[in-house]
Order: sequence, then C-alpha cells, then structure tokens
Amino acid sequence: MKALRYVAIGQAPEVVDIPIPSPGPGQVLLKVTAGGVCHSDDYVMSLPEKDYFEQSYPLPLTLGHEGAGIVHEIGEGVDSTLRVGDAVAVYGPWGCGRCHNCSTGQENYCTNAAAEGIRPPGLGSQGSMAEYMIVDNARHLVPLGDLDPVQNVSLTDAGLTPYHAIKRSLPKLGAGTFAVVIGTGGLGHVGIQILKALSGATVIALDVNDEKLELATHVGADHVLISDGAAAGKIREITGGLGADAVFDFVGANPTMALAQSVAALDSDVTIVGIGGGTMALSFGSIAFDAAVRMPYWGSRSELIEVLDLARAGKISVEVETYGLDDGPKAYEDLAAGRIRGRAVIVP
Amino acid sequence: MKALRYVAIGQAPEVVDIPIPSPGPGQVLLKVTAGGVCHSDDYVMSLPEKDYFEQSYPLPLTLGHEGAGIVHEIGEGVDSTLRVGDAVAVYGPWGCGRCHNCSTGQENYCTNAAAEGIRPPGLGSQGSMAEYMIVDNARHLVPLGDLDPVQNVSLTDAGLTPYHAIKRSLPKLGAGTFAVVIGTGGLGHVGIQILKALSGATVIALDVNDEKLELATHVGADHVLISDGAAAGKIREITGGLGADAVFDFVGANPTMALAQSVAALDSDVTIVGIGGGTMALSFGSIAFDAAVRMPYWGSRSELIEVLDLARAGKISVEVETYGLDDGPKAYEDLAAGRIRGRAVIVP
Amino acid sequence: MKALRYVAIGQAPEVVDIPIPSPGPGQVLLKVTAGGVCHSDDYVMSLPEKDYFEQSYPLPLTLGHEGAGIVHEIGEGVDSTLRVGDAVAVYGPWGCGRCHNCSTGQENYCTNAAAEGIRPPGLGSQGSMAEYMIVDNARHLVPLGDLDPVQNVSLTDAGLTPYHAIKRSLPKLGAGTFAVVIGTGGLGHVGIQILKALSGATVIALDVNDEKLELATHVGADHVLISDGAAAGKIREITGGLGADAVFDFVGANPTMALAQSVAALDSDVTIVGIGGGTMALSFGSIAFDAAVRMPYWGSRSELIEVLDLARAGKISVEVETYGLDDGPKAYEDLAAGRIRGRAVIVP
Amino acid sequence: MKALRYVAIGQAPEVVDIPIPSPGPGQVLLKVTAGGVCHSDDYVMSLPEKDYFEQSYPLPLTLGHEGAGIVHEIGEGVDSTLRVGDAVAVYGPWGCGRCHNCSTGQENYCTNAAAEGIRPPGLGSQGSMAEYMIVDNARHLVPLGDLDPVQNVSLTDAGLTPYHAIKRSLPKLGAGTFAVVIGTGGLGHVGIQILKALSGATVIALDVNDEKLELATHVGADHVLISDGAAAGKIREITGGLGADAVFDFVGANPTMALAQSVAALDSDVTIVGIGGGTMALSFGSIAFDAAVRMPYWGSRSELIEVLDLARAGKISVEVETYGLDDGPKAYEDLAAGRIRGRAVIVP
Repeated sequence: MKALRYVAIGQAPEVVDIPIPSPGPGQVLLKVTAGGVCHSDDYVMSLPEKDYFEQSYPLPLTLGHEGAGIVHEIGEGVDSTLRVGDAVAVYGPWGCGRCHNCSTGQENYCTNAAAEGIRPPGLGSQGSMAEYMIVDNARHLVPLGDLDPVQNVSLTDAGLTPYHAIKRSLPKLGAGTFAVVIGTGGLGHVGIQILKALSGATVIALDVNDEKLELATHVGADHVLISDGAAAGKIREITGGLGADAVFDFVGANPTMALAQSVAALDSDVTIVGIGGGTMALSFGSIAFDAAVRMPYWGSRSELIEVLDLARAGKISVEVETYGLDDGPKAYEDLAAGRIRGRAVIVP
Repeated sequence: MKALRYVAIGQAPEVVDIPIPSPGPGQVLLKVTAGGVCHSDDYVMSLPEKDYFEQSYPLPLTLGHEGAGIVHEIGEGVDSTLRVGDAVAVYGPWGCGRCHNCSTGQENYCTNAAAEGIRPPGLGSQGSMAEYMIVDNARHLVPLGDLDPVQNVSLTDAGLTPYHAIKRSLPKLGAGTFAVVIGTGGLGHVGIQILKALSGATVIALDVNDEKLELATHVGADHVLISDGAAAGKIREITGGLGADAVFDFVGANPTMALAQSVAALDSDVTIVGIGGGTMALSFGSIAFDAAVRMPYWGSRSELIEVLDLARAGKISVEVETYGLDDGPKAYEDLAAGRIRGRAVIVP
Repeated sequence: MKALRYVAIGQAPEVVDIPIPSPGPGQVLLKVTAGGVCHSDDYVMSLPEKDYFEQSYPLPLTLGHEGAGIVHEIGEGVDSTLRVGDAVAVYGPWGCGRCHNCSTGQENYCTNAAAEGIRPPGLGSQGSMAEYMIVDNARHLVPLGDLDPVQNVSLTDAGLTPYHAIKRSLPKLGAGTFAVVIGTGGLGHVGIQILKALSGATVIALDVNDEKLELATHVGADHVLISDGAAAGKIREITGGLGADAVFDFVGANPTMALAQSVAALDSDVTIVGIGGGTMALSFGSIAFDAAVRMPYWGSRSELIEVLDLARAGKISVEVETYGLDDGPKAYEDLAAGRIRGRAVIVP
Repeated sequence: MKALRYVAIGQAPEVVDIPIPSPGPGQVLLKVTAGGVCHSDDYVMSLPEKDYFEQSYPLPLTLGHEGAGIVHEIGEGVDSTLRVGDAVAVYGPWGCGRCHNCSTGQENYCTNAAAEGIRPPGLGSQGSMAEYMIVDNARHLVPLGDLDPVQNVSLTDAGLTPYHAIKRSLPKLGAGTFAVVIGTGGLGHVGIQILKALSGATVIALDVNDEKLELATHVGADHVLISDGAAAGKIREITGGLGADAVFDFVGANPTMALAQSVAALDSDVTIVGIGGGTMALSFGSIAFDAAVRMPYWGSRSELIEVLDLARAGKISVEVETYGLDDGPKAYEDLAAGRIRGRAVIVP
C-alpha cells in the first residue's frame, strides 16, 4: 500500500510503498478514508536527529494523527459489536486505558503512556496517511455514522483540541461574557464555532490580516480585530473595560501570549493552545486576580463523541482543502507557506 | 397617585387613589415606568381569607412583583452613587442581605426573610402597579440603561425565573444534548430563548395547541409537539431513545409532571417551575437513575443582571401586551382567560 | 469448582460443583479471593418466576456482584500489562465501553447494556461466589495492590455506591454544612466515613436502635439519632432551623423518604440509595426550594479507584463478617435476619 | 482615642491620639476588640512616597485590615436588625455592592471600587488599629457570636485568603489526591487546617526550617519537608511520581514559584498567594498540561461566613500572639524580624 512517511531526518516526507499491516489480538485494521494535516507534524519533522530519537520517534514514520476509515479487519479478542464495514474516526491520544485518567476517558492525560511506550498514531505509532492503518484498541474508534470522513476527519484534532480547551471555560462563558480567540486558522476557526454553539459569550477574533479575519467572520465571530498593538485597547473597549472572561490563544507566540495576559478579566481563563514558542512571565500585578493560565493537550474520548455530535447537528464545520496521497508532500509545503485556509486533508 | 390594589378577599383588583409614599432611611422611591402581570398574583388573590391572612398578606395590597421605574427620591443612608433619574429594574425577591444565601445574592433563598417579615413587592409589600413605589433597599435596583422598561420589565420574573432554572442545568446541556420545555407562555417562551442563547441543547417545546406552539417556533424551538399522550414517545424518538438531559415544566400540573418524569434521561435534571398543583410520585424505577428533580423559586441578584445582559445583547425578548393602569383589572381578566400571548405589562 | 448458586425460583441458594470456566478472547479468569453478600441478591431471589425471566436472569445463577481475586488466566487480545498473579477487585456495573457514558467510565449508566445483554456478575452474569469467575473485559479489573481482599471486597458495591452518591453532593458539603445519613448498616457505615474523609459536613446518622447507632458513632458520626417521629425536629434543632444540606437515605422506605423530604434544606441534595420500596410525593411546598431529589445506581470506574485509594489511606474501612463458601446460604439467612453488623463476605 | 497610624513616609507607625469618629448615614461605628497585623501593612509602609500617593493612600493612615469589634453607634438608613452591642468581624475587601461581582458577594473583585475610591480599612480607608473604627456599610459586618475576637480576628484575612484559594481547588482535592502548602506561617498554617477539614487530600507542607515545620505538623500536615533543592524530588516520591493536585504558594518568591511549577500534576491547580516578588515563566513543556496557574486576592463575603463557621466547629484555629495598642510598633518589628509564630493581634 502507499504511505506518506517521514523517512530521513530533515527531509520532506515521501510517498512509499509498504505492505498492508495485519491486526494483532485486540487491534483493528482500518481502510483509511481521510487523514488530516497538522502543524504538529511539521514540528516533529523539524526536530534535530538527537531530539527526535530521544523522544523515541521511529523512522520511518507514517504521518497522520487525524484519521478516519472503514473497519477492514478485526483482531482476536476485540469487542464483538464492532463490524467490518463500520465507518469510524480515530481517537488519537492513545493511553493505557487503566489509569485513573484513562478510566474517565482522558487518555490524553494517561499517566502510564510514556512508561509503556504508548504513542499516538502519526506521532510515534504509524499514522493515518496511508491506505490502511492499525488502531491499537477498538475503544479508540468512534462511530462516524453519516458524517463525511473527508469533511470531518480534522475534528479529531482541530476540533477536539479547541473543544477541550473551551469546554473547561464554559462555566465562565454565560450571559454577558466575552471570549477572545487569537489565531483563526485550523483550530481557531473551529473554536469560534464551538463558542457560538455552546456559550453565551460575545466572540472577539484576532488574526494578522483581513483575509484570515474574513474566515473568522464567516464562521460567526461577533468582532474581528487585527492583532496589532491597538488590539488590547480595542478589546478593553468592547468589553466595557473589564477584559475577556476567557482568552484562547491558538498561536502561543510571545506577542499573542502577552496580549492574552493583558486582556484577561478578573477570574477569567487564559488558555494557551498553540505551540508557538512563546513564554508568559507571571508575577503579582502582571495579570488580573484569579485569571487562570493553562496549557492543555488534545482532548478526551467523550469530548470527541461530543464534537462529532456538534458536527452532526450542523453547528460546526471545517474549512477543508483536499489532496491525494501522492500530493501529500505538497500539502505540507502549502501548510508551511500559509496557503491553507482552514485545514488540509489527505484522501487516499 | 393611582394604584391597582387588591382591596377585598375574593374580589377583582381595583384602581384606587392613594397618597404618594415617602422613602424612609435606606429606601428609594421610584416613579414606575412598567409593572408586569403574573399568574402568581392570581394565585394570591384566589387564597381564602384564612390562608391569605395566615400568610401575612396585607389588605389592601398594591399588586405587581415585576417592576421598573425612574429613581424619584432617595432616602437617608443610601449608597451615594444612585442618582435621581436613573432608570432601574426592581429585583423582587427581597431578603435580609446578611444571611449566607443573601451574601451570595441569592435573596430568593433568604433564611431570615420569613422571621423578619421581609416580603417581595406585590407579594406582601406594596407593589409596582402604581404611579410610584417604595423599594426597601438600593441593592434591589439593577440599572436598566437603554433597555426599554415596558419591553423588559417582565424579565424581572418571567425572565429571571426560567433563567435561574436553566442556569443550574447548563453543565448538563452541552453538545449533543436535548432540553424539553413544557408550557411555552410567559415564562416558557423566554426559557426557550435562554436555552438557545446559552446551551448546546436541541430544544423540544410542548404546549396544548398549535397557536401556542407557533410562538415557541417563533422564538427558536427546534421541535414543537402537542403535549398529548403521544408526546413521550415522540421525545424518545427525537432523542434517540435516551430521553432529555433536562426537562423544564412551566406548568406543574399532574400530566406535565408525569410527562417530565417519563422522558428524563439518565443523570438528567427535571425542574418543576410552574405551580399547577401537580404531584410527582418518586419511587425506585419510576424515573431514570440520577435524574434530579427540583422545584426552584425565582432567582438571584446576579442572575437578574445576567438576564438584562442577554436582553441588551438582543438574545432574548419578551412578547408583551400593554395596558394602562386603569385597564389593569382587564389585564387580569385576559390573563385568566388565556388571552395573553407572552406577557401582560401595565404602563402607568 | 464450588459455586454458590440460585438454582430454583423461590428456593435458598445452594453450593454446587461445576466446571472451572475458560476465558474466551478478551476475557480474564480470576481465582476468587472474596465475594460480598448484598441485599440486592435477596431482591433478585425474591422475584416471582415471571419477573425473574422477563428480566432475563439466567438459572442457575452464581451469586456475587462484589468480587476480588487473583488473575489466573488471560484470554486472547487482552491488554498486555495485565499479569497472571495480579490481585484485583472487580468493577461490577459492566457496560459496553463505547457509549458516551461508558467513555467517561460511567458504565453503571451504559446506554447499550440492556440492548446488548450485558449484565453485572451475580446480577445476570455468573458472579463471584465461586472458586473462579470470568470477568468479561480487563478494564473491569482494578488493582488491589496491598489491600486485603476480604476486608475490602465490599467496597466494590457497599463502598462505591455511597461514594458515588456522596461525591455528587460534595459541592454542597463545605464549611458549616450538615449531612444526614439514614441507615447505618452495610452502605451507611461506609457513607459516614466517606463524608468525614471528604467533606466539611457535620454528620447526623439515624437508625432504628442504639445498637446500630453504636457502629455509626464508632465510624465517626457527629450526632446519632433514633429515626423515630422526633428525629425531624432534632435535625432542625441541630442545623439551626435550616435543615440538612444533603440527605442520604440508605433505606428507601416510606418513613425514611418522608423524613428525608422534611429535613432537606433550601438548595440541598436528597439522595435515595436504598431500595426499600418507598415513594416520595413531590409537590409545590412539600420540600424546600431547589432541593434536588435523585436515585442513583452504583458508581463509575474512576470512582472505584478513588474508593480503594481512600481505603489505602486508612480513611475508610468496612465492618466485615466472614463465611466460607459452604456457609454461603447461612450468610444470606443472617443477612435477612438482620444479624450482620456491617457486611458479610464469602471467602472461598 | 488612641490609634496606630502610619504618619510619615518611611517611618515606623506611631500611636497617636485622635478624635473618635462619628458614623455618617449608612455607616457603623465599632468599638474595636482586636486588629490583626499583616505583612501587607509592611508592604504599604515600604512604598516610596511617589508610589504611595499615586496609589491614593492617605497620610496619616490608621493601620489594620483585619478587624473585630462591638457595634457602638449606627448611622441613618442602616439595616434595622443590627443592634448596638453586637459582636462582629469586619469583612475587609470593601466594594460597591452593586456590580456583578459584588452582587455575588465577591467584593474583593469589585469592578467599581477603584473608580469610586472605595478602599479596604487599613489599606486606604482608616483601619482597625484604634479604639474605634468606622465601617462604611453594615453588610461588611459578619456576626462573631461566641467566637473570641482576639483568637479569631485574623481569620478575616489570614483565614479568608487561604480559604478562598483552597475552595477553588476543592473539586480537584478528592480521594487519593495531594496538596502542597509552601510557607506555613500566618496564612499557611491556617491553610493546612482548611485542607484537612474540607478535602480528601494528603497535605505536604514546606518551609525553611524545622521550627516552622513543627507548627505545620501541629496543625495537621501529613508530610513536612524543608523547601530546599531536594523538595521537588521528595514530593514526586510521595505522590507516586504524579505530582500534586494543588499547590498553594504562600510565599510567592522565585524559588517557591519554581518549586510549585515543577511539582504540579496534570490538570492541577497552582495558586500563588504570597506577594514575595517572584515571577513564573510559563511556556510549552514548562509545566504539566492543564495545570492552572492563578493569583487570587482575599475572598468573598460568604466565604468569610464559612471561615467563621469552621472556627465555630473547632476545625481551624489561629496561633496568635497579642500586643496592646501601645505595643503596636513592636508587633511590626517582630513581624519583620520573623519572630511571630502564626499571627500577631493588637488588642486595644
């Protein structure tokens, strides 16, 4: 089968031909219907050789931690209600399934995964950018039902990650509140829709140019602002001087984190989702009292079910640009060049 | 001044002429701009003489527990930022201001009010259906700002009561959930809007005829159903067999409470708001596990601020029919006859 | 092997000899170290033939839904970190593992179990009162570690059930609050300890005689009361007239439910855990405003982990009386006769 | 009357003789029974002249933001249930009483106080270290009842501040959890007691020497550690490698904040209470995922009621050293020299 793999440190990924894998006991083989392209893949491929191997990434590595497919073959000992032919999405942050966090479906915070060498597909295990993929346990498959896999595969990360971040803040986003979304690309444009669907917040979206803000407006932002030096002042004005009840920074660079810190209201949430290399210096007086700063990672199994429910209800949708498997390398080039509006998806 | 008063047990209220009252220390005199008509007033006026006086209602009693006005005169010792001319809404469930519940603004659950004889305006204290009214403490005034008093006065009860009921259930009304609203009149039609504004729930509204359901659809209900014997089955079908995550019964009669009990999902909320004289018999197996049944009363001070914020943001509005003070008795006749669509408001 | 089985409708259970079962793919065979005796078993054995089979109970049925054991044999496809020789407790409310509730570990509220014929051990599947038992999925095993299986096996139900009930109410049981526990036997005496370990509540325990109350005092109740006609008044007095912030009724009969209803404070929780055949009639004025009445069932997987953590920290322990497997029938006789203090445990 | 006042920038406070003030409308005059000494007073007295006046502190300033007294005289328009002779504690973080935060009793987060010049006693308004003090509004008085004012006055800040910080984290401090307390002095030694009274957490307390840790052990810490370079490793060991579910840093200096950051578990709370001049640099990978870092300020009105309830129940008590008003300057010297074990209290 064809697979898009990272084969040599520092080189672009390549499409190669490899054997179709077989599911072992407890495993499931999927015929892949869609795989999503993400900045995180670029991050992994940018690691120096030493760091790459220290973090135990294999080489070659089939990319793709966003995946959807059709159940093709079921290993021994697998939950008997799963059927060959079922359309499923892959829950990516695989965990041990037994620790306290996993027992609540928060496998993204598994406390045994590192020690046991359990890695997400495309980020340590072989990923979704191939004609077939192995999923290590049937519990990591969520039924897609009638949802189109190509339109929705990105929800497994670009939907689940902002959903998890936002769900934590919903108690602070009732009537008369304000939410700020910094960065309106792959994750941010889904985040805006989640906020509009589930909260009472007025949504203020920021990005670097009008073109990007056009997408923010299209998906429902109440206010859009260029994220320049005047942004903090404008947010203060919109919020009646009080600042935002929640800020979601999908960029995570120094200027965006500083902006987030400066516009957070008393008792607000400041959630840094993007891995843009920034640092926030927290000291007395540098941020409003009881503003809680956190950096989450992906989401839980039940949250993925909820994200797909939102899509099914027509409340969120992803802006998607599709590529064939052979064009996979080009998708990463376009992503790096900022040419993707929304999210890129590989269709094998 | 003119006042609409209940003057004799069992008789209809009358418009009478009484002196304009003077605010004592700590009190505020409002020039009334609007007063809302409510089923609860009818309930009080239907009490037999014995019960009426046992519950310490005064006679004559100026009606009106929904009130809005302009600050006309300020008593000694009142918070100095309040100004003559300010437009305000009256927070009705007056409490002592000192007990634990009052210290969080939940004066509706004051634990001293009964012992200290503190009564809401129109429900024990002299109410809003007059040209002027006394408010016992400045903290019971919430700024209206630009909000039209006539269009919004009903929010102080018909908005606040469903808001309080729904806010408690918001953690159960995220993505992929269902809320059932039984009774789509004065409170219910605002409740539907609150659910749409603040939750991710699909809203199923029920009432006794198509005419009433038309208002439910108009304010945003996703599904409308006649509340007959087939309703429970239809709700099961809409919810994929699981039942509703929250049921709000704005009627509170035997059939509606039975319906609420039968369609509640596992771990749902069943909130009986209406005082329709019904009883629910709870026993093992009679309702889904961990479905929580409660009967709330009015709402808190901060919740009224939030309700007015929702109105200001254009997310909720009340269907209003207006009457002059002289037509006050007719408003109660129309209410009793079921001729009010939404809420009746007296404009002095 | 020996097994304590219900073999004929209406007859006492018997010890019989049956073959040791073999674990199929995905299953685990335990060598049982302890099995707890529960009133629920009596309930099942009291069902008329028609009801018994309508509810799909098998005959013969090995009793025991509280179980602990040593992993003896592991089927195909089972999670590879489980090892023969591991000491484990059995999470009893088996679910599908895939639905939304199961994805958060709330298999007690699985929405597929009924349709798929998934039943708890001892309550539909073959149970723990045998030398060996089959567990359908490795996720239903929680490590016991150094905990003594005989002393702690009852925690899988008599600990988990009150824990789940109480955990829901912890937000209402902070400083200055009161919790009422009705029934201080198998579940109640563990409930008292959980309240003392995790909440700030003053605990008021009620039972029918001084002998039973002695155990309540022993495990930490702050006040003990005979549950007679004077109890409600005494609770009002202890709580300064406000009533209890949470009431846990481990009996569930008419008088205890009426007591619970009458002493619930404003905005409290009333949780009916016991299945004593009672009914509560809820109507306006019959209970404090916003008092939430619910009837829960068992608990979640993560909650069982937490219960065992409490035991490991020495914060809860079960009063246990042990019986050999051959004495199993006598254990049920003693339970029915009210001769068990705390909980009976079968040790094969 | 005598008053301990800060009279000249950079100089020690002095005992001076000033007229007894008179309560204006809405105000209350207390005869002071106790006033607590706090590091924050030192902070204010350490401000350079320019900063002092820019922050609008008056000169002279009577110190004392922890206060208790007897109602001596009641101004016009004050809530009529307050009686001359009532024993009360003063809620210190005075707010406007009208904004959304104040409407829930969170006057510590009043959004109008700065603009309206509302300042806490001793921190802008004239404070409690005098024979009499003015309280601006009766709602800022909480009944002491039988509680000894000298033993309990410190609870209004040294109790309320850790209480507020800890209450936010209680949902994360159930069974099997760990809380770390850094700094076991005035606030910390009360914090340990609050954690033991209200949470299920195992408490690990840290300070700089064995003498201070002796108090921590005395008030109930489960583990005590010297806060040196080995502390983080020991905390990891005690917590089974997972880190602490909540860290409360009552120091707030660079080393303590770095320690807090390094031992926080996944999805934990890190609360910086002390104003020790430290800075925490937050970046991806520098702290566990979803660990929430916040810096709170004082507490709400209902929380003070709850703190006093805890004291009344005997669950918390303050280590107190008393000084006469004439010895007030010496109390500040002893505090600065680290000679106070627990909290210093001035008794006029």
